[in-house]
Order: sequence, then structure tokens, then C-alpha cells
Amino acid sequence: MTITADVATSVRALREEVCRLHGELTRNQLVSWTAGNVSARVPGHDLMVIKPSGVAYDDLTPESMVVCDLHGEVVDGDLSPSSDTAAAAYVYRHLPEVGGIVHTHSPYATAWAARGEPVPCVLTMMADEFGGEIPVGPFALIGDDAIGRGIVQTLQSSSSCAVLMQNHGPFTVGKDARAAVKAAVMCEDVARTVHIARQIGTPIPIAEADVASLFDRYQNVYGQ
Amino acid sequence: MTITADVATSVRALREEVCRLHGELTRNQLVSWTAGNVSARVPGHDLMVIKPSGVAYDDLTPESMVVCDLHGEVVDGDLSPSSDTAAAAYVYRHLPEVGGIVHTHSPYATAWAARGEPVPCVLTMMADEFGGEIPVGPFALIGDDAIGRGIVQTLQSSSSCAVLMQNHGPFTVGKDARAAVKAAVMCEDVARTVHIARQIGTPIPIAEADVASLFDRYQNVYGQ
Amino acid sequence: MTITADVATSVRALREEVCRLHGELTRNQLVSWTAGNVSARVPGHDLMVIKPSGVAYDDLTPESMVVCDLHGEVVDGDLSPSSDTAAAAYVYRHLPEVGGIVHTHSPYATAWAARGEPVPCVLTMMADEFGGEIPVGPFALIGDDAIGRGIVQTLQSSSSCAVLMQNHGPFTVGKDARAAVKAAVMCEDVARTVHIARQIGTPIPIAEADVASLFDRYQNVYGQ
Amino acid sequence: MTITADVATSVRALREEVCRLHGELTRNQLVSWTAGNVSARVPGHDLMVIKPSGVAYDDLTPESMVVCDLHGEVVDGDLSPSSDTAAAAYVYRHLPEVGGIVHTHSPYATAWAARGEPVPCVLTMMADEFGGEIPVGPFALIGDDAIGRGIVQTLQSSSSCAVLMQNHGPFTVGKDARAAVKAAVMCEDVARTVHIARQIGTPIPIAEADVASLFDRYQNVYGQ
Repeated sequence: MTITADVATSVRALREEVCRLHGELTRNQLVSWTAGNVSARVPGHDLMVIKPSGVAYDDLTPESMVVCDLHGEVVDGDLSPSSDTAAAAYVYRHLPEVGGIVHTHSPYATAWAARGEPVPCVLTMMADEFGGEIPVGPFALIGDDAIGRGIVQTLQSSSSCAVLMQNHGPFTVGKDARAAVKAAVMCEDVARTVHIARQIGTPIPIAEADVASLFDRYQNVYGQ
Repeated sequence: MTITADVATSVRALREEVCRLHGELTRNQLVSWTAGNVSARVPGHDLMVIKPSGVAYDDLTPESMVVCDLHGEVVDGDLSPSSDTAAAAYVYRHLPEVGGIVHTHSPYATAWAARGEPVPCVLTMMADEFGGEIPVGPFALIGDDAIGRGIVQTLQSSSSCAVLMQNHGPFTVGKDARAAVKAAVMCEDVARTVHIARQIGTPIPIAEADVASLFDRYQNVYGQ
Repeated sequence: MTITADVATSVRALREEVCRLHGELTRNQLVSWTAGNVSARVPGHDLMVIKPSGVAYDDLTPESMVVCDLHGEVVDGDLSPSSDTAAAAYVYRHLPEVGGIVHTHSPYATAWAARGEPVPCVLTMMADEFGGEIPVGPFALIGDDAIGRGIVQTLQSSSSCAVLMQNHGPFTVGKDARAAVKAAVMCEDVARTVHIARQIGTPIPIAEADVASLFDRYQNVYGQ
Repeated sequence: MTITADVATSVRALREEVCRLHGELTRNQLVSWTAGNVSARVPGHDLMVIKPSGVAYDDLTPESMVVCDLHGEVVDGDLSPSSDTAAAAYVYRHLPEVGGIVHTHSPYATAWAARGEPVPCVLTMMADEFGGEIPVGPFALIGDDAIGRGIVQTLQSSSSCAVLMQNHGPFTVGKDARAAVKAAVMCEDVARTVHIARQIGTPIPIAEADVASLFDRYQNVYGQ
């Protein structure tokens, strides 16, 4: 498979966008060294654009991004794709509404993941963004479909756009790469605030009906 | 209602000021993504200037700020105002001495809010700035006057210029927008320090008479 | 008293130095808003250079620094000096070896101060820099010599160049302003690390003879 | 011993590289003031390049780096070398596969060191990078071979490229200076995340076979 003329424009724009969005991961202190990545689906095509493996964020360029099919095979690019490519490809194959995926090891979200404990919904901001708790997915080794399957199964039984893979870290999804980055930023933010609240006491739960009302309003009214 | 010539100059200056002050929210790490806003009353008029809803801080310009009346209706501006506009309008209507309001989800202040626990006054800096504990306001859903009412009632029975809305986050007020931003910065600072103090022991209380003496001195002597 | 020609050169250089060193307070995240200051003794004269009160760090210039005598009276400068001027003046009067003083409300050091608990010496870096624990000084109201007296008495019975004033925050001293700033940075650093160590267990003490050996070596061998 | 023509080129390149890598220590917030250093072995020669003692990171230049032999004696350079030179020299003498060493007092790693407690392997990222727990080395005073000996003995009985010297802080090694810096960044990152996980519960262990599988894959497949 090669990139035909009709997708070349989309791919070029997504290389720029995906490259640029990695800057938000460092700016929001979600990643150390090279440990985190952004990907985007090429709309209408069985293709994705993803970070190359083990390259420093400062060295990323639109050209260094890797284009893969949705089984993780490289279609265009000189470098090896992220070691999370197979997991991302699995998610894009099984969740057609997902247009972007972010994976980090952001410290507070990863700490909840290390305990295998969901982040309880005790903040109006969590109700807005995640519609409830942030769930935990199974422990899974890298190398086959186990991680992707764990992400998909967990997200399908939750309103959340973030999942904490046990002992591993958060994966977030969105309608596009920017929305997935926003979810990664908010996931770490609420994981941190709820952690701090729990350190010296017990947060007050929010009633389920109130969570539903906040989530509905935010998804439909907030923003421009 | 439209903006008449006699308020146009004030509004223009406040658009600049309110826009610029959002930079202090990011610089002081009080906000993630778009979750926080500054507003200012237009002195002598039933108008306020506030952040547009869901716009990234880097993309804010004086022109993108929204001018509303004190019932939250847009008077001038192309974008939808912050979803906290109704709450801010309520506060400006009921507390005439308030010229600026800031709302954030800064992590330590919000953690106290998640537990519904006031920050006790155990720092001379808290006595200076807040005149006692930082109180908690009621849980309230967005969408009517509930948040504004909760803020006003809590501030009226306290010397504090900050209130922690339960499960939500801090709102701070000041004589102008800059004073409200300062209060937001100090609120997070003391919420953090007192949290840290509490993590491994019990802070020593400050006698009420000493709190009163520090507050009085700071409000009347400090600064230029 | 006025500034005579023979001290004008020293004062000019110290205005530059003291102004510039405030940048280290913000860079090392020791201060919020305007809550912290640096001062320097004018060598060989009963004068000091100190930050003006309540002025934002970004707005500081060498010209805005205030020259005071060692009773805190303004000798040269258009602005009111820091509200910690009386405390600093007391220290310069009573500790002739002190050439610089820094006061901050840095969060971890202030948290120990809020509990009235010294930071125990469980790090080789603490032994190097402070020669033992960082002690706590008494609670004291601003406005007379109480703070200065508390600082001097506590430092005189300790090898430490930092004291945590109860419910207030750290004061550090040095042979010059730069050394006092270094002490403020290190004080917060070790207050944080020891706090973190204590959060989930008990740090191992360092034997007194080893503390003495490390302190002696560092004061006499380290650096150029 | 003097630097002969055939090593001058290597040394010049390593002065640049070692100088530049100190910027990663500050950028990743691993160091306060001057408390941390990077060194590199000159490949094929019994020489190393290391930071000068007590010099601020902003003031470092390639020329100010110090070249020493592997007993810590200065071979080329105007300044005194880091006080950790003897420890680094010992490591280079006894571990021929080590091409770079980093020492910091990064707060979370140092907090584990203060308790004398290894960081348990409860994150896939730790399994990838360290192949198991991060071990603790003995308490040792500066001034003879004790620190170097403690580092070597601890690393030789572990898969980890980081060791936490008790009451002191982390030392990390790598095939070159850049790899040692990466290890220092990852060491602090996982020390922090596991600390956070432990603060409010118990992290789930990863089975030893899974740790071995992750470590093997990461060492052999990850990156370009």
C-alpha cells in the first residue's frame, strides 16, 4: 500500500498537527524524556499518523512522523513508529468515532494505575470532562493486541475518554488528536487534584444525577 | 443595550487588562487547558468584561473578551462568554465593592474544596491576606443563580476574599481584576503550604487576636 | 544621614546585585506574587539595600531598591522598604558576619514552620550546607524587634544559616546576598526532600560525627 | 600525563557534550543550585571529562569542564573538578562498560535514599528501563573510595543503571553521558510516580517473568 494523491494533503496536515501537539505534552509536563506519544487517524482512510519511537520531543519534525495502516504496518516514513503503534491501531480499528489517541506516563494518573484504582468522580470538572470515574484497564504486556483490547473493552463500558492501564499509564481518546491531548491534560489534572484531596481526608462524592447533568451540559453547551 | 461612547474607553482598557491577567493564571500554574477565567466590572456601569468560553489562553486577545451586562447577557463581543458568567454577574450585582473576580481549578485549593474543608489559618501570610480561614461554599450546579448565591453568602460571613465552592474550586474577588488574581495566587499558595504541613503532622494555630492584628496591619500598611 | 560620595559606588553595585538576585527567588519557585525579599549590607557602613514593599518582581529595577540604615530608616529611595526591613536591620546590627539576608514563604520550609518542627538532618547535602537540623524560631508579630530577635537568638545557638520562623517562613543569612539566596534555595530543597521521605516512612538519621565531618569539609574544600 | 594530539579531538567533543547535558539536569528539575554533575569517559583512554566544582549551571562552558585521569587527578582544565570526581573515577576504573555517570540530589529519588528503601518495580516503564527495583547503596562519606565502591558493588548485583546512595542521592550510569542523563531523568520520574502511588495505598507488583520480558524487549527493540 502506498499513499495516493488524494490522501497526501490530509497526511501532510496531520503530520504538522501531530508533531505540534507533542509540544503540549511537554508544556503540560505529562512526559519525561521520550515516554509518550500522540497519534491521529487519517479521516476516511485506514491510516494513522504517529510519533517515531524513542526520538526526543525537541527533535520531532512533521517529516519524522510515521504513517501506518491500521494494523501498525509502516506506509510512509523513514523511522520506526512508536512502540504503542499496535495498541493505537487496534483502537482505531475498533472504535470508529476515535480520531486521536494520546499515551503518557503522567505521574498522578500513572500512580492510580499502579494501584489499579479508578479515579473517583469528586470534582465538577471530572463530571464535565469524563462523565464519571476514570476507569482502570487490565495489566497487559506490549507486543500483541492485549493493550489495544484492554483499552477498547474498558472505554466501551464507560463514559470516560481516558483509561488507566494497570501498572502502565493513561491512554486518552478524542474525536481528533487535539481532543485526545486535552483529555490527557485533564486526566492528569484531576488525577492530581483527587490524589491531593485523598492524602489528608475523604473527598465528598457527587450524586450520580448531578454527574450526568454536568456531563450532558458540558458536552453540549460549553465552548464556542 | 449597546455600549455608548462614554464607556467605550473604559471597556477598551479593561479588555486589555483582563486579557493580560489571564497570563498570570498560566504563569502561576493555576489553570489547565481552558479551565479558569478572569472578569472585571466596568466601574460605574452595570457591565463586566469576561473571558470567552473554551478558548485557549494563548489565543486570547483583547478583542476576543466578551462584554456582558450584570445578568450575563452579551452586550459586545463575537464569542460566547465563559460558562461562569452568570455566577460572576450575580456577584457583581450583590457585592458592589467587588471590581474583579477570578475562578480557577487550582489543584490544592480544589482539593480542599473536594473534601468540603476550609483551609485553617496557620500562616501569618494567610492572616495578612485572608484575615482567617478560607471558607467553603455549598455544592451548586451550573446553570442558574446557585453558584453566585453560594459565593455571595459565603463571602458575606467571612473576612476572606476567596471561597472554595464544594467539589468545584476557588472563586476569588478583589477591588479590581488584578487584586482578584493576586487573591487566586495567594489562595493556591496557602492551600498548598497548609496541605503540606498537614500531611505529616498538625500545624500550630495562630491566636485569633494575632490574626486580627496581622490582617489589620496588612490591609492598611503593606505596599506603596 | 545622606549617602556620601565614598559609599555611592558600593550602593550602586548592591542595588544591581540585590535587584538581580530577586530573579533567583522566582526562578527557583520560592515566592508567590510579592511575598519574599533579598537584602544586602553595605560593607563597612551601617547601611543596607532592600526590596521595596509590595512591588512585583518583574517591575523591580536597581533604582527602585531602597537604602536604609540599620534601624530601618530610609536613607535613599523613592519607595517604602519591605515590611521585613526592621527584622533585617536587627539581624545586621547583631550579627556582624552576616552580609545578606533572604526571606521567603517557600512552601515546604514554611510547612515545617507551620508545625513548629525543625527539619532533621538526614541528607548529606543538609550536613554539607547547614551542619545539622534547620531550627525553628519563635512565633512573632511584625512591627517591633520580635522577629529580628527571634532570628538572631535561633541562629546563634545553631550551625545553620537558615531559621524557620514559626507559622511564618524561612529566613536565611550568608556572608553576602548571593550566599543567603543559595541558602534559601537549599533550605527549600532539603525541606522538600525530607518531607517527601517522611510521607511514607522514616528517614535514617546520620551520625553526629559524620554530620560534623561533612560540614567541615564542605565549608573548607568545596567549590573553586 | 598530558593530553596528546590523538585524544584532543575526542576531548573537545566531550567537553561540548558534557557541558550541554548539564542543561538537561536543570530542564528536568533534577538539581538545585550547583548540586549535580555529569561526566563522560574518553573512549579508549584512561581519562574522563567532568563538571568543575561549585560552578553555576548557567556559567558552564565547554572550556570550564575538567579533564581528569581515572584516579581523579586533573590532566587539563583551570578549575577544580567536581567533589564527586573520585567516585566517578572509581566507577570508570571498575566498570569498563560505563561511558557516562550522572549524580543528582533529585528530590523523590533522594527521599527513597534517605529512608534507605529501594524503589519497587511496579511500573512497566521501570521494568523497561531498570529491569527491576532501583537498589540502595551503603552510606559512605566523601573523601576516599567508599562512595565509588558502594556504587560499583550495588550495580554489579542488579540489572539497574541507577543506585540510590543512602542519605545521599542517585548515581546513574550508561554507555555514554547521554544514556546516564536519560537514566537520571527516568530514575526521578519513577521514584516520584511510585512515591505518589504509595502515598494513599499499595501499588500492585508486576510478576518477575513480566519484568524480565519487558526489560529484554526494551533493551533490544525500542528506539531507532
